[in-house]
Amino acid sequence: MALLHAAAAKWARAVVSDIPEALVVFTPSGKRGRFPVGTPLLQAARSLGVDIDSVCGGRGICGRCQILVAEGEFAKHGISSRADSLTPLSEPEMRYAKRQTLADGRRLSCSAKLLRDVVVDVPSSSQVHRQVVRKEADTRDIKLHPVIRLHYVDVQQPDMHDPSGDLRRLLDALEFEWRLSGLECDLSVLQILQPALRAGEWKVTVAVHAGKQIIAVWPGFHEKAYGMAVDVGSTTIAAHLCDLLSGELVAAAGLMNPQIRFGEDLMSRVSYSMMNPGGFVQMTSAVREALSALAAEVAASAGVTAQDILESTIVGNPIMHHLVLGIDPVELGGAPFALAVDQALTVSAKSLELNIHPNARIYLLPCIAGHVGADTAGMILAERPDLSAELTLLVDVGTNAEIVLGNRERMLACSSPTGPAFEGAQISCGQRAAPGAIERVRIDPTTLEPKYKIIGNEFWSDDPQFGTAEVTGVCGSGIIEVIAEMYLSGVINQDGVIDGALAKTSDRVVANGRTFAYVLRRGEVTLQITQNDVRAIQLGKAALYAGIRLLMEKLEVEKVDRIRLAGAFGSHIDVKYAMILGMIPDCDLSKVGSAGNAAGTGARIALLDSTSRTAIEDIVRRVEKIETAIEPRFQQHFVEAMAIPHKSAPYPNLRMAVTLPEPKDSAAQTATRGRRTRR
Amino acid sequence: MALLHAAAAKWARAVVSDIPEALVVFTPSGKRGRFPVGTPLLQAARSLGVDIDSVCGGRGICGRCQILVAEGEFAKHGISSRADSLTPLSEPEMRYAKRQTLADGRRLSCSAKLLRDVVVDVPSSSQVHRQVVRKEADTRDIKLHPVIRLHYVDVQQPDMHDPSGDLRRLLDALEFEWRLSGLECDLSVLQILQPALRAGEWKVTVAVHAGKQIIAVWPGFHEKAYGMAVDVGSTTIAAHLCDLLSGELVAAAGLMNPQIRFGEDLMSRVSYSMMNPGGFVQMTSAVREALSALAAEVAASAGVTAQDILESTIVGNPIMHHLVLGIDPVELGGAPFALAVDQALTVSAKSLELNIHPNARIYLLPCIAGHVGADTAGMILAERPDLSAELTLLVDVGTNAEIVLGNRERMLACSSPTGPAFEGAQISCGQRAAPGAIERVRIDPTTLEPKYKIIGNEFWSDDPQFGTAEVTGVCGSGIIEVIAEMYLSGVINQDGVIDGALAKTSDRVVANGRTFAYVLRRGEVTLQITQNDVRAIQLGKAALYAGIRLLMEKLEVEKVDRIRLAGAFGSHIDVKYAMILGMIPDCDLSKVGSAGNAAGTGARIALLDSTSRTAIEDIVRRVEKIETAIEPRFQQHFVEAMAIPHKSAPYPNLRMAVTLPEPKDSAAQTATRGRRTRR
Repeated sequence: MALLHAAAAKWARAVVSDIPEALVVFTPSGKRGRFPVGTPLLQAARSLGVDIDSVCGGRGICGRCQILVAEGEFAKHGISSRADSLTPLSEPEMRYAKRQTLADGRRLSCSAKLLRDVVVDVPSSSQVHRQVVRKEADTRDIKLHPVIRLHYVDVQQPDMHDPSGDLRRLLDALEFEWRLSGLECDLSVLQILQPALRAGEWKVTVAVHAGKQIIAVWPGFHEKAYGMAVDVGSTTIAAHLCDLLSGELVAAAGLMNPQIRFGEDLMSRVSYSMMNPGGFVQMTSAVREALSALAAEVAASAGVTAQDILESTIVGNPIMHHLVLGIDPVELGGAPFALAVDQALTVSAKSLELNIHPNARIYLLPCIAGHVGADTAGMILAERPDLSAELTLLVDVGTNAEIVLGNRERMLACSSPTGPAFEGAQISCGQRAAPGAIERVRIDPTTLEPKYKIIGNEFWSDDPQFGTAEVTGVCGSGIIEVIAEMYLSGVINQDGVIDGALAKTSDRVVANGRTFAYVLRRGEVTLQITQNDVRAIQLGKAALYAGIRLLMEKLEVEKVDRIRLAGAFGSHIDVKYAMILGMIPDCDLSKVGSAGNAAGTGARIALLDSTSRTAIEDIVRRVEKIETAIEPRFQQHFVEAMAIPHKSAPYPNLRMAVTLPEPKDSAAQTATRGRRTRR
Repeated sequence: MALLHAAAAKWARAVVSDIPEALVVFTPSGKRGRFPVGTPLLQAARSLGVDIDSVCGGRGICGRCQILVAEGEFAKHGISSRADSLTPLSEPEMRYAKRQTLADGRRLSCSAKLLRDVVVDVPSSSQVHRQVVRKEADTRDIKLHPVIRLHYVDVQQPDMHDPSGDLRRLLDALEFEWRLSGLECDLSVLQILQPALRAGEWKVTVAVHAGKQIIAVWPGFHEKAYGMAVDVGSTTIAAHLCDLLSGELVAAAGLMNPQIRFGEDLMSRVSYSMMNPGGFVQMTSAVREALSALAAEVAASAGVTAQDILESTIVGNPIMHHLVLGIDPVELGGAPFALAVDQALTVSAKSLELNIHPNARIYLLPCIAGHVGADTAGMILAERPDLSAELTLLVDVGTNAEIVLGNRERMLACSSPTGPAFEGAQISCGQRAAPGAIERVRIDPTTLEPKYKIIGNEFWSDDPQFGTAEVTGVCGSGIIEVIAEMYLSGVINQDGVIDGALAKTSDRVVANGRTFAYVLRRGEVTLQITQNDVRAIQLGKAALYAGIRLLMEKLEVEKVDRIRLAGAFGSHIDVKYAMILGMIPDCDLSKVGSAGNAAGTGARIALLDSTSRTAIEDIVRRVEKIETAIEPRFQQHFVEAMAIPHKSAPYPNLRMAVTLPEPKDSAAQTATRGRRTRR
């Protein structure tokens, strides 16, 4: 930008000396202005506030400021715009084209100068604040506002007449060329500043964090800046590597959370810490090592090094969040479930022993409450229910379900103890989602014969091409479907009781101790859905529904406009079955969908768009936190929600899509069961 | 202060309900006001802006808010002030008196309440911003403004109805009780916050740095906060431990700089780094280990631990400054002598591997130029020439002399290459100041017989009680005196030439090769002052004078009002002899004195008075930096200053105190020498 300043001075002189002017119109912004002939386009753009990127400050090196002349007659502007409205291809442009290739018609706006009236198109790839397109349907794009910016500068050499330090001259250059003032500098940058300046012959690139802190310096021109967004789940840890200059997702990787050796689920890890004072240190080391391993992996697959990762964001439930930070999660194991810290934090990579650039900063999204963590904050950031008038219900189902309900007026959040049934645990034939697990089920209402699909096989079990695939168990989404289908086919009634009378007419219903079971599959591995299995799912779904109901009651609403199911469960579940079971309230089925890995997406948004950080911090502060454990109404909602889909909720939208069975006489069934026990 | 807020509320109610008021006058501030009967004195003081200390926030625990009732009739105020103008000794006061003793008549102002009109004396020990008295004569006291403050707070317990984190509730308490807002918290404090709060039963003491950052937390009440001021010299490192609550100096220690094994003087250490790329790392480790050892030593001698040291300040020349920071000083070894950083820095103890409290911050005073370091900034801070209209000359003599000249209008600084002669090096009989070294010399102008004093012996050598003490050499101050006395007694002339003709009449002047020498001592060790020794001192003193002269010329002044000599050399030298030699310009001898270890004092001021940090940073920015190496006039001044005391400076003040010899005919002497060589 030193060159731009020189150009500005020349421009100012030109104004005085009556040099002819030309009109330039930038699209798509439509910003326009008259400038003296000879003004570099980048300079014109800057003075009009048109968003054009630059790392090299107008030296024709970085190629980020590319524009296109829109050729033709523009009646609206009264302009005939032609390629030769600009100066011919310059020396720096030809050099750049040779080194990096410059697509046909593209010009470097720092080099191309105004000759005649012109319409200039700024492609989105040349904007700093470009839109990063999200693949997920039904979501807004991410606006790129990276917290890390790279700046190439030309630093004045030291001089005996002015004994200022190298840092001061670097700061002066950053202020002069980039209008950055009041910067501070990490000590480890200071330690390598002098050799870097000399190796780069007084030209260096610095990385500035949040417009305030110099965190890295490289000799000469450098344009690698990556960021890693991490979702630390209790079971898996997922990392996404983004190019902070383009916003592009360049690599992703995941691995099992190595803390599993200290306990399968969250509470057993907290117990480990309770039983082994100081034991959290081992869990902290384990998760930090996993983060470093992931960083190495995503960097390698993007062809860069972990040292090129200059920023990271982390989401996770409160216990994962605390363990990553090196905080004993023991207080989260019992009432009142006190977080050590709820607000968002920025810490150094060094302090988390995270093997990326040592001065990288790690932003951890805020936690909401003792059971509602930074992962929920990430989900809110991914979905932004606060931007719409529609009342949106966000649900992330795990051992606990995190529930957020709100719109632009108000937002409420709670956690509900659904138990692990939806993850296939506590179900006799349940298993984690893995190849061989049943994930889809249909039951013929007449014959009660089932058909199913397993993970890793695209054919239904009644298709000849299904073959002899090994069937190992039923995963979460399979359990939802089989129980919903059992209800639709009359195997269970609205109270979830398996109709033992059917055992007389179908060998799919069999006695199982004092109750009955439904035989989903016979063979090497026999898979039965027992009365206990149905009960476990009923307890889980009732807890989830009761949590949702509690929030609806607090908001004084009877229906929601939109439901988004997050997480792995949300991605695999058929929302219709979730509604048949009564896990979620009634809603237009077209407005119910998966939010994908919303927590991870939230981490990616926080990584790419620094303005989103203050947004989510503000939202989280405003969220009304509801603690289900101390809400007397929760128990009542819970009891009422045991029925399938619900004792009193009418489910009008669901009934339009699915024919629900007529309620059977529960007393008759009880009699049947009574008889059976007497037999 | 929670209690004080409650008191304030009560006071507000009282105003409304017409409770009678009483007048309170605080001395020595003279601040006065009327308050409802029953108002705690601390509360009254706070609302009047009277400076009274408190760590416990008005709970009667810390005892820092002690006051005294001034008994008697105060006509000026129309008050009859008596001990019973306050409520009787309270429960907390009796508890405190039992635990800590409460001197007769002392009251805790947080507990003692107003009954009748009263005059209250606030002893200086109860003031936050008390004066810390400096032992050195002719200096201002230090005003205590510690950057670290301790705050005792009562934190609200977590509650399921309000799921805020422990940190948030701590911050709320600090804001409510101490009006501290926007605080941030070190990660390692966060990691121990939950156990600390529970161990302290929700009462903790926190250390806050600069009103912004929580750097430590302790369960319950804690009142240990120490700071260490360090002067890192090339030869010795000195540390002073201060109680940050009282400002008192509680311990001091020094040790040899272990970097000496990499080179005796500064330049040989830079050479080491040049010859061994990366070798500075070893020097950095060596000096950092020494700092940790000193911290352990001063802490132990004060009966505390190094972990109680919550803040540190460091001064040192540019090379020491860079090495402590882990910056290769190689650029300081050659023109243009570029500093990596000149501005003041605050870094963490952890980043310097300094074994004190890991979250302690280290403040390094700013450097001025490549040869004028943070030690000179410390000297300026200790002497503050900018506060006076008097033109003050500050000189710190070492291998280089740092020279500062200025007053409230302007200030200039430079460094001058005096060489090591003043430290006893490059002198045939020279040695470091140590027992056995001659430090004082007198020569009888008639007989040319010398007498001397050695370090470690209070008697002159001609005193029978001098005994048979071993005499090992001549230290810096001894060399100054012997050469000045040689001049006064006519052994050398103004040009520094030893008068060989004297060899005929005195056996104290002897031939020494082609020149002559003066025999200071005969015996087991013969000590002679050779012509080369005289030359070495002349070169050194001419360099020093030329530097001073250059600054005077830049300021366009012909005389200085005041001279302060800093460092070990400044402490031991007899200023009269320094002036006779012409090291320093003429000045009223009563205005010439030692500044002691001014650099170290500056570090101590920066430690105790945080406002002094911005002061010295401002001063250093304004100081006009003169580089003698590129000033053409420097050479000329240097040549002119070779004569004793000076070829052209008249030295009127000196001549009033001392009779200087008439200039001898230099030509005659040369003839003498000529004859001698022909002999």
